[in-house]
This record gives sequence, structure tokens and C-alpha cells, in this order.
Amino acid sequence: MTRSITILGATGSIGASTLDLIRRNPAEWRVDTLTANRSAKDLAKLALEFGAKLAVVGDESCLPELKQALSGSAVDAAGGKQALCDAASRPVDMTVAAIVGCAGLGPVMTAVERGGTIALANKEALVSAGEVLISAATRNGATLLPTDSEHNAIFQCLAGNDLAEVSRITLTASGGPLRTWSLDKLRAATPEQAVAHPNWSMGAKISVDSATMMNKGLEFIEAHHLFPVGLDRLGIVVHPQSVIHSMVEYRDRSTLAQLGPSDMRVPIASCLAWPKRMETPLEPLDLASIGELSFFNPDEERFPATRIAREAIEAGGAAPATLNAANEIAVGAFLDGQIGFMAITAVVEETLSAYSAPAPASLDEVLAVDEEARNRASQSLESNALV
Amino acid sequence: MTRSITILGATGSIGASTLDLIRRNPAEWRVDTLTANRSAKDLAKLALEFGAKLAVVGDESCLPELKQALSGSAVDAAGGKQALCDAASRPVDMTVAAIVGCAGLGPVMTAVERGGTIALANKEALVSAGEVLISAATRNGATLLPTDSEHNAIFQCLAGNDLAEVSRITLTASGGPLRTWSLDKLRAATPEQAVAHPNWSMGAKISVDSATMMNKGLEFIEAHHLFPVGLDRLGIVVHPQSVIHSMVEYRDRSTLAQLGPSDMRVPIASCLAWPKRMETPLEPLDLASIGELSFFNPDEERFPATRIAREAIEAGGAAPATLNAANEIAVGAFLDGQIGFMAITAVVEETLSAYSAPAPASLDEVLAVDEEARNRASQSLESNALV
Repeated sequence: MTRSITILGATGSIGASTLDLIRRNPAEWRVDTLTANRSAKDLAKLALEFGAKLAVVGDESCLPELKQALSGSAVDAAGGKQALCDAASRPVDMTVAAIVGCAGLGPVMTAVERGGTIALANKEALVSAGEVLISAATRNGATLLPTDSEHNAIFQCLAGNDLAEVSRITLTASGGPLRTWSLDKLRAATPEQAVAHPNWSMGAKISVDSATMMNKGLEFIEAHHLFPVGLDRLGIVVHPQSVIHSMVEYRDRSTLAQLGPSDMRVPIASCLAWPKRMETPLEPLDLASIGELSFFNPDEERFPATRIAREAIEAGGAAPATLNAANEIAVGAFLDGQIGFMAITAVVEETLSAYSAPAPASLDEVLAVDEEARNRASQSLESNALV
Repeated sequence: MTRSITILGATGSIGASTLDLIRRNPAEWRVDTLTANRSAKDLAKLALEFGAKLAVVGDESCLPELKQALSGSAVDAAGGKQALCDAASRPVDMTVAAIVGCAGLGPVMTAVERGGTIALANKEALVSAGEVLISAATRNGATLLPTDSEHNAIFQCLAGNDLAEVSRITLTASGGPLRTWSLDKLRAATPEQAVAHPNWSMGAKISVDSATMMNKGLEFIEAHHLFPVGLDRLGIVVHPQSVIHSMVEYRDRSTLAQLGPSDMRVPIASCLAWPKRMETPLEPLDLASIGELSFFNPDEERFPATRIAREAIEAGGAAPATLNAANEIAVGAFLDGQIGFMAITAVVEETLSAYSAPAPASLDEVLAVDEEARNRASQSLESNALV
């Protein structure tokens, strides 16, 4: 049976992986809407290839370019923030929410309010707006399928089991490219060193998050919202090979783990086909040729991000949104050579100490926290600046 | 809600583990019947402790001892093969089938014909009588819950998924205590060396099966009957730490694995509470303190048992029952010092070459194959005798 699908953020890496899977199973899918932020030409090309009904650019200034690229075709074009939300409100069987950053919040919330089935790749939706989003999903009967490899692993390991039966959920962390570095060496780490992720090919921002382990801190916050077993039942283990993507232990001491290649098409396929399965073009797992899986406890002295994230979600309210915003500012400053590697988490922690807002009750309030936290983080860059 | 339970083979290690769990959850269970082969006193003690309605010894000569030990109590006593089957036919919510060897076949089949829910620990039921048993289970709507740690792992990893979605089932094997030995050294291995299993505390016969890897061969045959994905989708990987108990890969290249302590109470608890979970008294999994999991391809030159088992199930018919019977004779002869370690699998292979019977269509035919295979194996001991 053909199902309709909308991809919010079609030109990014999650969008590309999703479309790769759809391209291999064309009879299964009817693409309704594709969106991008500014990549009008790429978007138009994809919309034409997949026969989309609608293509939307988030940045309205790119709409003329999109219109031109689509002229003479059957694909409608639209642009701007409201157009993104309008796109997310169209009735489809599956929405892939893959817009990066807080720009994705509005469209995700619109899809949730429609009560749709959403493959959720937008981290901010859960990190910054977790309570707002989850309560809207519950209220509207929306189904959230996590596409992050870790959360998708947990989702799979929970299949058919009740959260009440869980004794522990453990996120695995690669530990990033600087995992074995001393504190002194970490202080001098360059952006180039920090973005060289061993297992996943990713953008610069998320690669730095992997090097600081803030990505795991953010995922810890996401996991807390998706799988509310309580913070004392949520843990992290460092697993450099990234073969086990996460684990769920039940109260009988059975642990279920999901393993697979470091390729986003695996968790995306799991969401697209859920509750069934679909083919992916990847090689079978060959543990004998991998040889060895190793595990370490996180070292929160060298990598304080997971502690900071845990404290932020314990504090609740606006703290997770503040953490996320401050981290974006700090990572940007690190990539620009303004601050050192260890200063990233220092800036985040300073911002969390300096700014405490009431719990945001709406998306607008989340965005206000986000903006103010960015300001505060920017102010704290100076005291952490490299001389 | 209290559920009724019968344990066929209550005084063995599976029985003891099951009763340990029931002892910790007395309000959940009402013990109906406990059976043993000859351990009348131990059986009577357990029957009194758990307030069983009926206690049965398989060996009728032990019935007077059982009756005496139960005199004045409300527990009925019975003895003999038919009494075991009568016990298995009593209506209960759960039957634990833990009688060792072919003596368990009749009672298991009786429970299956009643359409009951059966926690199946009797290997012979699946190895020797696999087709007969599975077709009876299907016909009568019986539910088979595998208690072997490997098959229970697979059962858990399949939860909520269709066998048609599976690309591969992989049994893990510890490789046994002689895993790293050379062929020359293996030829001279003593019973004492072969029974020193690194991860599991087990009886001598099954410990030798672990050392030859015939246990994995037998489990391969069991897995083929329980999870009929096709022999080309069924594999074995050597994993000395025995932390991962088995794995299921789906066609999207997601692999689900079950991990846990090497304690039979974990898979038994999974069966007892299925589809829910129950507490066990075991420690949480701590992968960071385990540190490392390693994986190797099986070496079928040094350990030919898995190849022989695969060929036996490919041949089908009476071959698996023949293999199991021949292996029991050969392991007994090895433990008695009559034949060397490598001769165990040689005797099995010779017996399989020499004896080929039509596929058994009933339990009686399975037992006839078993008896004849034992005779043939005994004959081939001589040519393999240690000088």
C-alpha cells in the first residue's frame, strides 16, 4: 500500500538518507511535500524527481529561485516560516521532521497537533521544548518515532514491553575523536581535531558535540522525554566502536541491545517501515570481523557535558533550552577560534548559572528562552576567550 | 493473579532455578505438580515446601520412598512413566518441561497435546523429535517458550516482529574451555579439562558438549525448529564472554541482541512472566566493568560438531535424533576414558554415516531411532578406542 510522506528538511543529511530509501522503494511511497531552508535548486530537483505536490523554502527570499526552478512543473512552491507550518499541517501518513535547530520547532509542533506519525530527527524539539512537545503529542494522539540511532535503538529494544518493566536504559557513546586525550591536551584541541569523528560522518557542529560528549548530554535529555523511566534509570556507557547503539535492561536482568552499522538509513528505515521492516542497502553485521566491542565509564572530569546535561534536566524548566542555546553559541565560537575546547562546556555551565527562566509553557516561550540564552552565552564568551 | 504451575524435573538445575524464582514470588504462583526421576526425598521436601497437590517419581521403584516421605501430608504421590504423562496432562497455566533426555519426550508431548503454555528446557524434545513436537504444538495451539539462554534470547529479540522480516539469527557460543587449543592438544584433552566450563556451571555431559561445541550444534537444530527462517539464515559466532546470548538481524540491518548474566534464572524468569517481566535476584549488567566483548568465527576443523549438526538437520529425517543419541554414547565413553576428545565427534559422524532411518512420525518412532542409534554408536566406540 502506498503511503504519503512529507520531509521537513529534505536537503540535509537525514533528508538525503530518507530519500535514498524512498528511491529504492518507489512503489511504497508518494511524496507529498519537501522543504528546505535556502537550497532552492536542490529542493526543486528533488521535488521534480519524486513528483512532490509541494516544495517549500523556509527562507522566503529564496522563493523566487524555487519558483523559477519549478516553473512549468506540477509542483507548487511556497516560502517562509508560516509556509513550513502549513506544509506540516497537510494530512500525510508519515512526516519526517529533519529541520535542524529551533527553526524546526514550529513545523514539528504543527505535525504533532495534527496527530500524525512523525519520524523525529529535530533534536531541539525534545531538548528545548521536550515537555511542551510530549504533552502536545499525548493530547493529540501523535506517534513519535525517534530517528536518532540511539533513541531508535531504545525504541526497538522496548518493543512489546512496558516502561514499568525497565530497570535501566543505557545510551552508548562513541566518546568522540578525543576520547583518550588528557585534560591538558584537550585544552589545546583544535577545531580540526575535534571534528574528526571516528564512526559517523557528520556536520561540524554535531562533530564538536560528539568530541565534548555534549551530543550524549543532549541525547540524555531527549531520552528522558521519550522514555520517562526516571533519571536514576538512565545511563551512559562509552563504547568506541558504536556497534551497540543503545540498550534497555528489564527488571529480570535481561538486556536488549540494538546493533547495526553507523548509517542513518538503518534507524530511518526502522521509522519508515514501523512496525514492520524494510530493506536497506547495507551490509550484514559481521561481529567476527569487527572482533571486539569495548566499554568504559564516562569520565566527567575530562568530558563534563553529560554531567551538565543531567543537572540541566534535573533542574528542569528552562535549563535544557538554555543549555542547548548556550552550547550552540559556544561551539560556534570554538569553531571560529574564539574559545578553547574545554571552554565550550565552561560557557554552557556559566550560562546555566547566570540565567534561570521559568519553565516555558509554549513554543514562543521556548524560543524566547533560546534567544535570551544565546545572548547570555555570547556575553560569557569574552571571559573564556583565547588570548 | 495467582497462576498454577507444574515442574517436570523439579530436582534438577532448571527445576531448582524455577523454584528459586517461585520462592521469591510466592503470591504469584500455585504449584500443582512436581516430578523427579529418582530423588524421592528431595522431591517430597519441595512438594511440602511449595504445597504441591501431586508429586511424581518417574522411576516407580522410588514410589514407596516418596509415599513415606509424604505420609500424613495433603500431597498425593504417584510413580512411573505413565504417571509422569498423567501429571503433564493436568490443566495448569504453565508447565516447565525440564526432564533431562528422552525420558522427557512423553510428558512434553502430553503437555503440548493439552495446548498448554510450556517453558521448554528439554533439548531432546526439539533435537530428536523436533518435527513431531512442533507439528503437535501447532495442531493443539500450544505455546512453546524456550528456556535455553540462547533460544530465549532469540525469542526476546523477535518480540513484536515477523520471522519474514529476519535476515539472520546468530547463536553465540562461548567456545568452551578448550576454545584456543590446537588440534594436537585437543586430541589429548582429558575429561577433567573438558568439563571446566568458563561461564556456566553445568553437569559433566553438557560441559563436554560445550567443549566439543556439540551443545551449539544441538542448539542450532533446536533453533531451526523454533525459528524456521531457513538454515542459510542461521549462524553461529564464538563469543567467549557469553554476555550476548544470541542475536536477530532484520532485513533493515538492525540487529537486536539479548545480553545478561550467565544464570538460568534470567531466561526462566522471562518464560515465567512472559509477556511481562518479573524480578530476579541478579546484579545489573555492567559492561564498563566487563570491559570487552570479543567475537570469532567458529573453527570447524578443530570443532567439527557444528558442521555435523548442520549436516544432520539438512539431511533431516532421523539424522538429528541419531546425532543426539550417538553424542550421548560418545560423551559417556569419553568421560569413562574409553575414547579421546576428538573421537566424540568422530563416533557421531560414523554413526550418522552408518545408520539412516526414515523420518520418525511419532514419539515411538523417535525413541526407536534413539535406541538403534545408541547401539550403532556403541559399536563404533571400539574402532575409536584409546589404546
